[in-house]
Amino acid sequence: MSPDMQKALNACMETHGHCEQTMTHCLQQGGRYVDMTMMGALMDCADITRMGADMMMRQSPMAMEMAEMCARVSTRCAEACMTMNGDPIMKRCAEMCRTCAEACRAMAGTRA
Amino acid sequence: MSPDMQKALNACMETHGHCEQTMTHCLQQGGRYVDMTMMGALMDCADITRMGADMMMRQSPMAMEMAEMCARVSTRCAEACMTMNGDPIMKRCAEMCRTCAEACRAMAGTRA
Amino acid sequence: MSPDMQKALNACMETHGHCEQTMTHCLQQGGRYVDMTMMGALMDCADITRMGADMMMRQSPMAMEMAEMCARVSTRCAEACMTMNGDPIMKRCAEMCRTCAEACRAMAGTRA
Amino acid sequence: MSPDMQKALNACMETHGHCEQTMTHCLQQGGRYVDMTMMGALMDCADITRMGADMMMRQSPMAMEMAEMCARVSTRCAEACMTMNGDPIMKRCAEMCRTCAEACRAMAGTRA
Repeated sequence: MSPDMQKALNACMETHGHCEQTMTHCLQQGGRYVDMTMMGALMDCADITRMGADMMMRQSPMAMEMAEMCARVSTRCAEACMTMNGDPIMKRCAEMCRTCAEACRAMAGTRA
Repeated sequence: MSPDMQKALNACMETHGHCEQTMTHCLQQGGRYVDMTMMGALMDCADITRMGADMMMRQSPMAMEMAEMCARVSTRCAEACMTMNGDPIMKRCAEMCRTCAEACRAMAGTRA
Repeated sequence: MSPDMQKALNACMETHGHCEQTMTHCLQQGGRYVDMTMMGALMDCADITRMGADMMMRQSPMAMEMAEMCARVSTRCAEACMTMNGDPIMKRCAEMCRTCAEACRAMAGTRA
Repeated sequence: MSPDMQKALNACMETHGHCEQTMTHCLQQGGRYVDMTMMGALMDCADITRMGADMMMRQSPMAMEMAEMCARVSTRCAEACMTMNGDPIMKRCAEMCRTCAEACRAMAGTRA
């Protein structure tokens, strides 16, 4: 596996974990933590980064485009989490998602 | 595939779908629809019935015990949904979960 | 849900099921049924169509691009299965994958 | 999260990764690497440990019984991999699966 893919793989796995745990935090907080946009972003990001990681581990021919999709979903999730960045758990999740987006874009060789 | 397993498989797939759609409904409603117990029950039930269905389709040696776990998680989800049975979507999800629990128990040859 | 999305959703769920069952068939046959290209295509198609279906059911903002990815992975899987179209199970899986690719493209409003 | 659960969580995530990568290795080798028992054990173990990890991260009430199921599926997968322990990749996967089984049993507070 290339160093770029290895980095993206690690970032996807970590992001998956952060999103799963952040979802639980959101459900414990209630209120605007659990609106459709926030929970939807976390659910999508958790699922897509996990699948991206699986495709990378399997060396699937779909791994490149999964990395691009991981970059998009992580960017969206980072934005959702940053709307509540007064909460350190949300802020940390946002940062992890951004790191993941960068690593996935680097792997896929794309910009923005 | 035995008729009992086919029935359990169909019920698991339908329950998975109901839970996914009911989660979206809950997030749209907010308030007590999105508390930990309710959303957690829906998430667990969605994930476990889907995996149960996959194991049955693959004729995995784990299919029997997955069916038992599907029965337990569906029963728990049905109970959570029944606390809001004034809402027809929640009630329908509860009914689907109960049907699934029965079909999975019948397949696994267990009681209660 | 729009009729196009409903059709794509049904096709994704059916394709997921066909791929899971076809994988078991391939493992039972052995030989060239289980080479990397064939099994990899089935595994990717099974996983991606399932996730596509979940995103559609949740009405996720990622549903459109998941549909495009489902179309690509189903097309690839159909091609892999068609190399063994003397086997009715492989042929049926190929046909299901093609139907799925068409339904997903129709939903996403794309060509080819 | 208790130290026991943290250990089981880490072991489940690592085992999931090992199984995904070992499956690719098996498909590359062909022959008896890809028989039903071997590939089936790897697929089941990959899927169930991943779901177990998700339930632990979410602090689901199903986490305990998922840990027990992870222990069983990992034990089965370790046994399958040990039949080919002349291959260092298979041996390493077997060892990871055993470690996972132990960690999950410790978490669930069960024996054997």
